[in-house]
Amino acid sequence: MNSKLQPIYRSYQQANKAVLNSAADKSGLPPGTLIHIGEKHESKSKISVTQYNADALITHEIDSIAELKHLKKTGVITWVNVDGLNDIHIVESIGQELNIHPLVLEDILSTHQRPKLEEYESFLYMVIKGIEFDQERNISVDYEQISILLLVDYVITFKEKSDNTFDPIYYYLQNNNSRLRQFGSDYLAYVILDTIVDEYFVVEDNLDEIIDPLEENILFNPTKEMLQSLQRIRRNLISMKRNISPLRELLATILRSDNPLFQEKTLRYYGDVYDHILRVTDSLESYRERISAMHDIYLSSASNKLNETMKILTIFASIFIPLTFIAGVYGMNFEYMPELKWRWGYPMIWVIFITTSVGLLFFFKKKKWI
Amino acid sequence: MNSKLQPIYRSYQQANKAVLNSAADKSGLPPGTLIHIGEKHESKSKISVTQYNADALITHEIDSIAELKHLKKTGVITWVNVDGLNDIHIVESIGQELNIHPLVLEDILSTHQRPKLEEYESFLYMVIKGIEFDQERNISVDYEQISILLLVDYVITFKEKSDNTFDPIYYYLQNNNSRLRQFGSDYLAYVILDTIVDEYFVVEDNLDEIIDPLEENILFNPTKEMLQSLQRIRRNLISMKRNISPLRELLATILRSDNPLFQEKTLRYYGDVYDHILRVTDSLESYRERISAMHDIYLSSASNKLNETMKILTIFASIFIPLTFIAGVYGMNFEYMPELKWRWGYPMIWVIFITTSVGLLFFFKKKKWI
Amino acid sequence: MNSKLQPIYRSYQQANKAVLNSAADKSGLPPGTLIHIGEKHESKSKISVTQYNADALITHEIDSIAELKHLKKTGVITWVNVDGLNDIHIVESIGQELNIHPLVLEDILSTHQRPKLEEYESFLYMVIKGIEFDQERNISVDYEQISILLLVDYVITFKEKSDNTFDPIYYYLQNNNSRLRQFGSDYLAYVILDTIVDEYFVVEDNLDEIIDPLEENILFNPTKEMLQSLQRIRRNLISMKRNISPLRELLATILRSDNPLFQEKTLRYYGDVYDHILRVTDSLESYRERISAMHDIYLSSASNKLNETMKILTIFASIFIPLTFIAGVYGMNFEYMPELKWRWGYPMIWVIFITTSVGLLFFFKKKKWI
Amino acid sequence: MNSKLQPIYRSYQQANKAVLNSAADKSGLPPGTLIHIGEKHESKSKISVTQYNADALITHEIDSIAELKHLKKTGVITWVNVDGLNDIHIVESIGQELNIHPLVLEDILSTHQRPKLEEYESFLYMVIKGIEFDQERNISVDYEQISILLLVDYVITFKEKSDNTFDPIYYYLQNNNSRLRQFGSDYLAYVILDTIVDEYFVVEDNLDEIIDPLEENILFNPTKEMLQSLQRIRRNLISMKRNISPLRELLATILRSDNPLFQEKTLRYYGDVYDHILRVTDSLESYRERISAMHDIYLSSASNKLNETMKILTIFASIFIPLTFIAGVYGMNFEYMPELKWRWGYPMIWVIFITTSVGLLFFFKKKKWI
Amino acid sequence: MNSKLQPIYRSYQQANKAVLNSAADKSGLPPGTLIHIGEKHESKSKISVTQYNADALITHEIDSIAELKHLKKTGVITWVNVDGLNDIHIVESIGQELNIHPLVLEDILSTHQRPKLEEYESFLYMVIKGIEFDQERNISVDYEQISILLLVDYVITFKEKSDNTFDPIYYYLQNNNSRLRQFGSDYLAYVILDTIVDEYFVVEDNLDEIIDPLEENILFNPTKEMLQSLQRIRRNLISMKRNISPLRELLATILRSDNPLFQEKTLRYYGDVYDHILRVTDSLESYRERISAMHDIYLSSASNKLNETMKILTIFASIFIPLTFIAGVYGMNFEYMPELKWRWGYPMIWVIFITTSVGLLFFFKKKKWI
Repeated sequence: MNSKLQPIYRSYQQANKAVLNSAADKSGLPPGTLIHIGEKHESKSKISVTQYNADALITHEIDSIAELKHLKKTGVITWVNVDGLNDIHIVESIGQELNIHPLVLEDILSTHQRPKLEEYESFLYMVIKGIEFDQERNISVDYEQISILLLVDYVITFKEKSDNTFDPIYYYLQNNNSRLRQFGSDYLAYVILDTIVDEYFVVEDNLDEIIDPLEENILFNPTKEMLQSLQRIRRNLISMKRNISPLRELLATILRSDNPLFQEKTLRYYGDVYDHILRVTDSLESYRERISAMHDIYLSSASNKLNETMKILTIFASIFIPLTFIAGVYGMNFEYMPELKWRWGYPMIWVIFITTSVGLLFFFKKKKWI
Repeated sequence: MNSKLQPIYRSYQQANKAVLNSAADKSGLPPGTLIHIGEKHESKSKISVTQYNADALITHEIDSIAELKHLKKTGVITWVNVDGLNDIHIVESIGQELNIHPLVLEDILSTHQRPKLEEYESFLYMVIKGIEFDQERNISVDYEQISILLLVDYVITFKEKSDNTFDPIYYYLQNNNSRLRQFGSDYLAYVILDTIVDEYFVVEDNLDEIIDPLEENILFNPTKEMLQSLQRIRRNLISMKRNISPLRELLATILRSDNPLFQEKTLRYYGDVYDHILRVTDSLESYRERISAMHDIYLSSASNKLNETMKILTIFASIFIPLTFIAGVYGMNFEYMPELKWRWGYPMIWVIFITTSVGLLFFFKKKKWI
Repeated sequence: MNSKLQPIYRSYQQANKAVLNSAADKSGLPPGTLIHIGEKHESKSKISVTQYNADALITHEIDSIAELKHLKKTGVITWVNVDGLNDIHIVESIGQELNIHPLVLEDILSTHQRPKLEEYESFLYMVIKGIEFDQERNISVDYEQISILLLVDYVITFKEKSDNTFDPIYYYLQNNNSRLRQFGSDYLAYVILDTIVDEYFVVEDNLDEIIDPLEENILFNPTKEMLQSLQRIRRNLISMKRNISPLRELLATILRSDNPLFQEKTLRYYGDVYDHILRVTDSLESYRERISAMHDIYLSSASNKLNETMKILTIFASIFIPLTFIAGVYGMNFEYMPELKWRWGYPMIWVIFITTSVGLLFFFKKKKWI
Repeated sequence: MNSKLQPIYRSYQQANKAVLNSAADKSGLPPGTLIHIGEKHESKSKISVTQYNADALITHEIDSIAELKHLKKTGVITWVNVDGLNDIHIVESIGQELNIHPLVLEDILSTHQRPKLEEYESFLYMVIKGIEFDQERNISVDYEQISILLLVDYVITFKEKSDNTFDPIYYYLQNNNSRLRQFGSDYLAYVILDTIVDEYFVVEDNLDEIIDPLEENILFNPTKEMLQSLQRIRRNLISMKRNISPLRELLATILRSDNPLFQEKTLRYYGDVYDHILRVTDSLESYRERISAMHDIYLSSASNKLNETMKILTIFASIFIPLTFIAGVYGMNFEYMPELKWRWGYPMIWVIFITTSVGLLFFFKKKKWI
Repeated sequence: MNSKLQPIYRSYQQANKAVLNSAADKSGLPPGTLIHIGEKHESKSKISVTQYNADALITHEIDSIAELKHLKKTGVITWVNVDGLNDIHIVESIGQELNIHPLVLEDILSTHQRPKLEEYESFLYMVIKGIEFDQERNISVDYEQISILLLVDYVITFKEKSDNTFDPIYYYLQNNNSRLRQFGSDYLAYVILDTIVDEYFVVEDNLDEIIDPLEENILFNPTKEMLQSLQRIRRNLISMKRNISPLRELLATILRSDNPLFQEKTLRYYGDVYDHILRVTDSLESYRERISAMHDIYLSSASNKLNETMKILTIFASIFIPLTFIAGVYGMNFEYMPELKWRWGYPMIWVIFITTSVGLLFFFKKKKWI
């Protein structure tokens, strides 16, 4: 990646600045321009270096990649985690340090990647999406792109945000006897993958907690708010599918892979993650079908309600409209209306009123409306 | 599996306890922590050991796995069945005894598994879902995870609940001349699979008994309760599909397998189970299509009913509203209304009433509404 | 198949008797129990034996399989057809005579099989569904399971019912010069398959005769009866698909097969049946799409009709309700209502009536309602 | 094909005559009976023979296949085109002359074939459907089965009808320098295929001309006639898909084929036809999706219209019904109704009328109905 | 391609002229006739020649292909870009110059191609669609066919229109140190592909800007205009899918290809374009699902609105119709109506009015309508 390139295109780039936060950010830029694309998270990038073997575990927080050189050791696994992608130079210098292909550096910085796996001569590059249920906003899922570079004895991870996704791994590392401390960098990469995928189940549980009561209530009390919830869940399922389902292929590729970076015994564990992904995608498909069924129920239920409303209107109107007509007849002012003079005219008219309405009530009773 | 691991994570685990019954239970726990995930069934775990060959059949009920060692014999098939997964130590000690991979032990205890088959060096691990139609609740299917470990001369099964799913197998075992008594452990595993799959047909029959009358009635008497039944069946079909369809692949893998645990002649029988699974999944697909068709019918039928309600209202309103108007006209109190003084005014107005209403009735007759 | 097995399970079996006609009949029975599962057809089983070569053709009707032994000859093709599956012993003795695998015997008797092909060492087993349009019931298709055993010089067929499906074959056999008389048992099996598949086209023609007029009428005169027809056709299409589509794979397997039972030159003919099956399944798919389109049309058409009903109501109500109000005003009994005393009050009110109604009629005209 | 066979089955055949025009025509006939199945086109069959090489081009119209023998020449490509399938003997004698498999002859005569390709030892058989937009009937597509036999130096085509589908080929042949005149019979077969497939684009243009304006209008002026057009287009798309999509596989098979009948350089041209077919099937799929979208729009639009109708009714009824009630109150004849005697009673009542109606108009204004 | 061919068919061609702008333009023309099919863009064709290597960069604008010969040089990459396809001779002469297969020349001129890749002996032909969001028309996407011929040291591109799609490439070329200047013609072809694909993201962003607010508003304020937007987006998604999804296969073919035109190190970059295409097609699928969900919401929401309208009507009508009837009763003119004479008759009737309406209001309150 030649950084001399930048000045030349600056002007061109400026023109496109307005849309630089969207998926099309790099459109119009020559391929090979390193630039961070995606939502900008304010915090400064943080670099944590963890080195361990079966016997020891050391954690450093460093400020620049230059320090990383001094930390080179043999016989230990080094895990470098970068939180935040604002500082392009960190990615660039790690690229130079470890001889990473420029396309990979571009992909790390562009956070609209599809989960994927790329095998290079000396390293392996994975992109995967961390997801989190946003408790504050109404049914919303947040995504975070996590890039994993797996080398012999090295794992480098890049995260968009500085959150606590990796905390369980740090806990786990403290245990001297754990497999993690005894196995290689491929096992560390597995633990990272597994930790991210575990978050998917948490999100699914959150969805379950929303979908289950919705399913119970939608038939008997369909409201506009439920429709809104359905729409939101559906939107999230669509984006989750997009972000999760490519993982199936990613892991299938690892399982078929004969890359020497993966030891035979570790592949079993990747197989376990693969099973988890299958379960998650199965669930997503189930949710999709259930949401679609709920839409059908909603429509049928709304149709039912309309039917009932119309029945009430029809009963009221059909009974009173004829009666009103009869009353109207005897409200006419014709001079010669013999009935008006009859002694029993008025009581008789009440008999007619009552007979008519009872007759109509029977008619609606027979139609099972009341 | 190192059990020293537990204390260290206890606190971390405690924090997550609230959600420990859900699919995400292990999220936040390091991989390799043995813990029972899923609905807890109250009863104590029960271990039954059945040993047989062509000549003899012995059944023991033991309390701990330690006793199992004393039961080791050659020339017999040993079937260990564990009912209930509350007691983690049983699984752990069986794991140590038979040298089972820790991931398998985890999977046995986590009852949210997808049906799957895993081949290990010395054994084969299958997960399969037993299903049962819940007669008490309204259209509901219960699932039970059944794990099968197949070794040379050994079959270990783990069931979530202590029910009578395996009773037919115990009956069958009593017959000295049966194939079961003469064939190997692979045939026992087949009989177990076959028995579980047979339950699927029972559930389908139960569904048939609900769907068939529903299909007959939905066109002519669509009610809200039918809509509810449709919704429940649909939900169950979705979950059944999730729990059953992976079996297709599982059995296809067995049929293609050249694992020495399977004898050539037994594979024919597995082929038979495969056919059954195909039939079950075909049925599920048919049910799905029928339910979807019933939804369409429901909507069309509701739409029909609305049409009819509206026709009645329209007929009543369109006939009596003009008549009421006419009556209203002659109820006006203008001083100079010559018609009111006419000798035949009143009878004439009745002629107008009758002509108008008959005319409108003809109009609706022509429109085929009445 | 050990028939000693029966007594032991009798009691167990009895308990399950209530559901013995359903798909789950064998659930709870040990695998390997010979029992006829499916609708029982009353008639006694009938065994017809046809023996032929290029020169001769003999047909026997025999009572027991024992007689079959005396009929063994070389140089002839023997076709044994069994109509009716009530007599388990016939199947059992044929099994013993020709050394048929017990699983095949079970499948022959259980008439809920999926069409399939199984290759055994010395024979080949096919299950296929004969279908027939039930002229008496309203849009209903009957199924019959037909099992075909193909051996060298032998074809055994088992039919559920005693009907005239195979009559064209008997006709055809009478022709000395026909290919059927000159080719082997594989060609006979082809002719049987072809005859069964030809029946599918007859059923399709019957469906065509129902669907075509339905398609014409549903747009302009949608009735509840059409909805019912749609529902019935859809149900039958679902079951036909289930019973026919597996044949595609069955025949593809035959075409790829290098089983010595099939001669090279006969495979061409099986290819022809394969084409027929493709045509049938294409048609089924087309029907499905057409029925689904008709449902859409039905809903749209019902929606149209409702719109028209409501327009009539709205026109009537909107015109006469204001008029009635005006009439009501001048029916009030206030002492000081100057209009009532005007000489031209009454004619003027008629001018208002007519103007208002003409105005509203124009309004509805402009809206293109009338 | 043994023609002695016919007399024997005549009677049987007669019985089935009633349905002999349908897809099931051959059902009940022994396989191998040559009979023309499908719509009968009145015209006599016409045989055209075209012989050409780079230097010469001769066209004959012959009456019987016998004449064909005299036309045998080396160094020329002979193209025999048969228009009309009424005369079975033509097909039969061509079959004898060129040694064509009887199944192929049957397929040529039965015009309900699925497009397909069959490779025989010395020739290649293709069935393909010519289609034409029927300008006279309302949105209807006509199909014609065209059979192509490709041999070394020979191409035989059979068309159901005598139309001008092949005219462009005759034009093209007149050009001495054209590839057609210089290449072999495989190139002629390609030109025939290409000419037929080009007709598909014409039909698509005809559909485009109907669908595009429909799409524009359906949202704002949905009529019953549009619904009918939608239904017709959909029906035609279903049948076009059935008749065209198998061509994809047909051409893929040719492209993969190593049949010596195809020269390497000609295959490029078949690849071009393959691209065209892909384009046609893509278009059909697009049309299908657009029609389906238009149905959704239709329903939504009808729903909108109903909403508007109901709003008008509700506004009218809700405003005038209360007013009529008030007028009714003061039309009552109670002796003691003080308001009636008030000097300003009548004007006050108008104030009430106007206030009420203005209030309700505001209410509906606020609801954005008016 | 023999241009002598033209005069002969002129007359035939003339007859078909009317439809020459449509997809079926070539139907009826012999294969091998060079003719520009598709929308005609007015501007004259423009030929730009760019020659570069690591050291130098020269750009010419030439008038005829003849000039191209003089520009032949070794050691440089030559990129010829032709804007506009009106001038058939340009294509024809490039074809002769570089020995391009006539079918390719036809395809370049016919702008209804499906994106595809064809490998020839000495060159490689790609068709790809450039797309652009039409800012002026209402939700509309414009397509432009771009043909790419890749040879050793040569890239020829043909564009339908003269727009600024390739501007970023010209910028990029000016940078001496860029990979583009150092790599071969395969990298130039990659940059062209990448530039075109980048435009897809811009179109997607444009769609996002329309879909996102639509999704927010459709539930609460469904209007007819939204329905129109939905329909337009859907139509564009259908055409985008048609024009983009074949690229997936195209790039997969390149990635699997062992064509010597592609260097190993360049294939990585094509892999990057492949990822982009996957992202675009994923997005299109997501949009499709979202649009479909929005249609469901629209229908449900319209159904809700109807329900509410009907409730208002029913409340008004059901309350006032009975009251009007009562008022009508006491407006009758019977001589003997005792109530009319009662001192408290009139106040009592108001009590009845108020009680009735309050009762009905309670009834509707209980039904949760108000």
